[in-house]
Amino acid sequence: MVAHQVAVQIGLRRRLYQEMEPSARAQQGLSRANTFIVLLVLLSFALFALETEPTIQGPARQWLSILNLIVLIVFAVEYVVRFWIAGEDPRYRGAAGRVRYFLSPFVLTDLAAFLPELLWLLFQPAGDDSMLMFLRVLRLARLAKIARFVPAFKVLGVALMRAGSQLLTALAMALALVFVAAVLLYFIEGVGEGREEFASIPRSVWWAVSTLTTVGYGDVYPVTVGGRIAAGIVAIAGIGVVALPAGIFASAFADELREREQTKRKQKTAVQPSSD
Amino acid sequence: MVAHQVAVQIGLRRRLYQEMEPSARAQQGLSRANTFIVLLVLLSFALFALETEPTIQGPARQWLSILNLIVLIVFAVEYVVRFWIAGEDPRYRGAAGRVRYFLSPFVLTDLAAFLPELLWLLFQPAGDDSMLMFLRVLRLARLAKIARFVPAFKVLGVALMRAGSQLLTALAMALALVFVAAVLLYFIEGVGEGREEFASIPRSVWWAVSTLTTVGYGDVYPVTVGGRIAAGIVAIAGIGVVALPAGIFASAFADELREREQTKRKQKTAVQPSSD
Amino acid sequence: MVAHQVAVQIGLRRRLYQEMEPSARAQQGLSRANTFIVLLVLLSFALFALETEPTIQGPARQWLSILNLIVLIVFAVEYVVRFWIAGEDPRYRGAAGRVRYFLSPFVLTDLAAFLPELLWLLFQPAGDDSMLMFLRVLRLARLAKIARFVPAFKVLGVALMRAGSQLLTALAMALALVFVAAVLLYFIEGVGEGREEFASIPRSVWWAVSTLTTVGYGDVYPVTVGGRIAAGIVAIAGIGVVALPAGIFASAFADELREREQTKRKQKTAVQPSSD
Amino acid sequence: MVAHQVAVQIGLRRRLYQEMEPSARAQQGLSRANTFIVLLVLLSFALFALETEPTIQGPARQWLSILNLIVLIVFAVEYVVRFWIAGEDPRYRGAAGRVRYFLSPFVLTDLAAFLPELLWLLFQPAGDDSMLMFLRVLRLARLAKIARFVPAFKVLGVALMRAGSQLLTALAMALALVFVAAVLLYFIEGVGEGREEFASIPRSVWWAVSTLTTVGYGDVYPVTVGGRIAAGIVAIAGIGVVALPAGIFASAFADELREREQTKRKQKTAVQPSSD
Repeated sequence: MVAHQVAVQIGLRRRLYQEMEPSARAQQGLSRANTFIVLLVLLSFALFALETEPTIQGPARQWLSILNLIVLIVFAVEYVVRFWIAGEDPRYRGAAGRVRYFLSPFVLTDLAAFLPELLWLLFQPAGDDSMLMFLRVLRLARLAKIARFVPAFKVLGVALMRAGSQLLTALAMALALVFVAAVLLYFIEGVGEGREEFASIPRSVWWAVSTLTTVGYGDVYPVTVGGRIAAGIVAIAGIGVVALPAGIFASAFADELREREQTKRKQKTAVQPSSD
Repeated sequence: MVAHQVAVQIGLRRRLYQEMEPSARAQQGLSRANTFIVLLVLLSFALFALETEPTIQGPARQWLSILNLIVLIVFAVEYVVRFWIAGEDPRYRGAAGRVRYFLSPFVLTDLAAFLPELLWLLFQPAGDDSMLMFLRVLRLARLAKIARFVPAFKVLGVALMRAGSQLLTALAMALALVFVAAVLLYFIEGVGEGREEFASIPRSVWWAVSTLTTVGYGDVYPVTVGGRIAAGIVAIAGIGVVALPAGIFASAFADELREREQTKRKQKTAVQPSSD
Repeated sequence: MVAHQVAVQIGLRRRLYQEMEPSARAQQGLSRANTFIVLLVLLSFALFALETEPTIQGPARQWLSILNLIVLIVFAVEYVVRFWIAGEDPRYRGAAGRVRYFLSPFVLTDLAAFLPELLWLLFQPAGDDSMLMFLRVLRLARLAKIARFVPAFKVLGVALMRAGSQLLTALAMALALVFVAAVLLYFIEGVGEGREEFASIPRSVWWAVSTLTTVGYGDVYPVTVGGRIAAGIVAIAGIGVVALPAGIFASAFADELREREQTKRKQKTAVQPSSD
Repeated sequence: MVAHQVAVQIGLRRRLYQEMEPSARAQQGLSRANTFIVLLVLLSFALFALETEPTIQGPARQWLSILNLIVLIVFAVEYVVRFWIAGEDPRYRGAAGRVRYFLSPFVLTDLAAFLPELLWLLFQPAGDDSMLMFLRVLRLARLAKIARFVPAFKVLGVALMRAGSQLLTALAMALALVFVAAVLLYFIEGVGEGREEFASIPRSVWWAVSTLTTVGYGDVYPVTVGGRIAAGIVAIAGIGVVALPAGIFASAFADELREREQTKRKQKTAVQPSSD
């Protein structure tokens, strides 16, 4: 009877493994369990955002706390289940395998994403709120959960590699331009006119970044004739150069996505050669 | 004599149908009646805009009301005429066909675009102006009229489909970046420095959106050294990523337009093979 | 002797015509006389800008007036010379030809670019300065001089034609988006919150243009939660769409320029087949 | 023994030459000595920026001065070493060769990047700080050191040449648009409404640059109905045109980088034809 129980358990473990481990899944797309996890991560980010809003008080705040606790518990359960089903993977079998699983980056990140905060909430240690605040930053580790299940996030890394040295060169060029523009305005507006906002090169760099990315908050801008001429030349000459690194990355990302879709479509065509 | 009258009516209906139904038209381009409707929609939007302007008072406002009433009546007449001529379409013949026509989305939208407001103006029911305001929002339904007659607006949907999963992935990436940037600045400027504008993550998200789209209103910006360094890195690294979804859609839209023009040009060449 | 004088005059006229009429010139590039005219137009624009600056007073202003008078006289001389040498062109021979020349658009523009202002300065009629101001706007007609001599400006029109219906469609889409965004924010911020900056749709349109072009002056921005959410969605979804018309024109312009250069290079290669 | 010493010296000179002269290096990439120089230049720019920050006082400032002095001395040593090893290059042998080396642009720039400031610090001449400030601007000459060792910076010049006349044409177009927009707003807002920010064309040009580059600081913007309509049209029509020169340069730069990488990859494949 014990053997039968173990067999049932093993069967359950296999089914759970196929449900929760994307690489073990036969069909395309996200399994229902993982879709739920992804949605829960998105919900937990929404909770994270709302919890920091000081104008939300009273019962609404209590609901946020309760929902947050539920999310933490679900992530704890998910962690335990994943730890259990990891035995299906030959790499993680046995005690040594389990230790190896425990120490793998994704699993440690998973742990950091719920354990410290859960322990704090359960034991309420003496300590100020800034500690709890820090624990909440760890919630960003939940992005790793999405990165694991949603293939789009994997493309991010590939696109960075693909853009490679082009990206680095463009970035170096952009930074050099930002620095030269900042030095220019520092001398014209800061040294020449004694303006507070350009009183040092680091402050001028803030102006240069805000201008060359075309954000232009309006907290710092040149007011003298010379400064405006220099700023105008810098702006017309430079906006494309500073947008270049982000543009190179963006086009590498779009190219990678397009190629993946084409490969997928070809594979489909290869599987059904008689259709269409 | 009755039969003759019916025959005249049927002849009129057919001619009107060919004039007002784009799919039944032999020539290319918009018919005169539909051009008039499109221009009337544009005029009605201008009226809509001007009516909301509180500084327009006195006779100018009365003229706006009169013009608006005329537009409503023309749309009512157009609706009745289209309802009548719909009998030319085999799908909408007979009582059941008329009900089917009445319930089709475009026709319901057409009704919503003039009937509620016209009824309000004719019967002047007791009720505050905010109700009338709401009825005016329904005027945006008139965009559907343009979408039906101007092919360019149909391309919009095709371009969205075409960009498809690429668009979704880029959008997810952009939103993730906005969120991470907001959390970063929330901790540096909000928690660290107690600044009101970054006092919660939702408020920081407003900063992140305004910065990463490079709009940069200047209502929220970092003032501390750490915040400015973080904001600078986020701006240089991120502006391309947040512009990516709109860029992917824009290029899909432009590609779709180009291909349609080429197809059209080829068809013309095929029709007149001897000319050059 | 009279015959001889006429012959000399005719020879001078021919040489001047070949110097000043780009289409009659054998070599490539701008002739010295036309280069001088183009530089003079640029100088006259600089004078135009500086003359409007109220902080420039005293002798500097007098120098500006003198330089401006010289420029006007040179343009007058240029006009007379061009009128004289137009006789080299068969189309403009004889009295009727001269009238036809006088009434051609470029020539009328040339006249408007100096005559009204010169007459004003010479006769100093009674009248306020705003009249003189208006006469100065006519100086922008001098751009036509550049457009005639610098081929790059001709590309402008070709690029507009080339982008054609694509440009129009993208423009319509951009304007529709601006309008819908404005209506949205008008209802959320203006009607819902009674904010002055969104108190009517035309005012909201100003916000929508300033946001969707990513200029973001910071004179108008949403402050309510709903308004910021709507503005954020509009900004992320829309910045690419509103940048589309300018982007389509810019790429058509760049394509046209590239093709012209390639054509020029091919022609050179065809002329010197043995070299390289 | 003297001959032996000379031989050792010559051997050292050769090895130093191969280490410090990129063109004499067998392996790809930057040598350790030049990597150190590049990092030192970056450090010296960081020092430059921090030295101008008035809030850095006391011991931190003294550390900056000491680090700066060390950097100057290292650059002096580097200069002397490079002068010595230049004898390895046949072009710079002998007294005449050394003079030629001394007068070559890169070497003069290298001298300007440390000598004036070092002399000032060593002899502390009577004179105000603005003189020292000017000497510090010469530090930007150190960018030339990076330009010499990092190939990416060489691509800059090639990309400018490549974009060539296209870049110039686009720039002329952008400047013309800026000028016309400025004149337009000057007449509508400045002359028509007496607004200080548009009171002259040069001031309007500042608005036009800030708007058409989409920086939009918010220090200058139209407030009248006419001005806003004109500004809106200018913004929608013009943002792509003013971004064009920077975009043309950016794409020429990216193309040049891509081609260089492909060439490098082909060369590698050609060297190892049997691999892969």
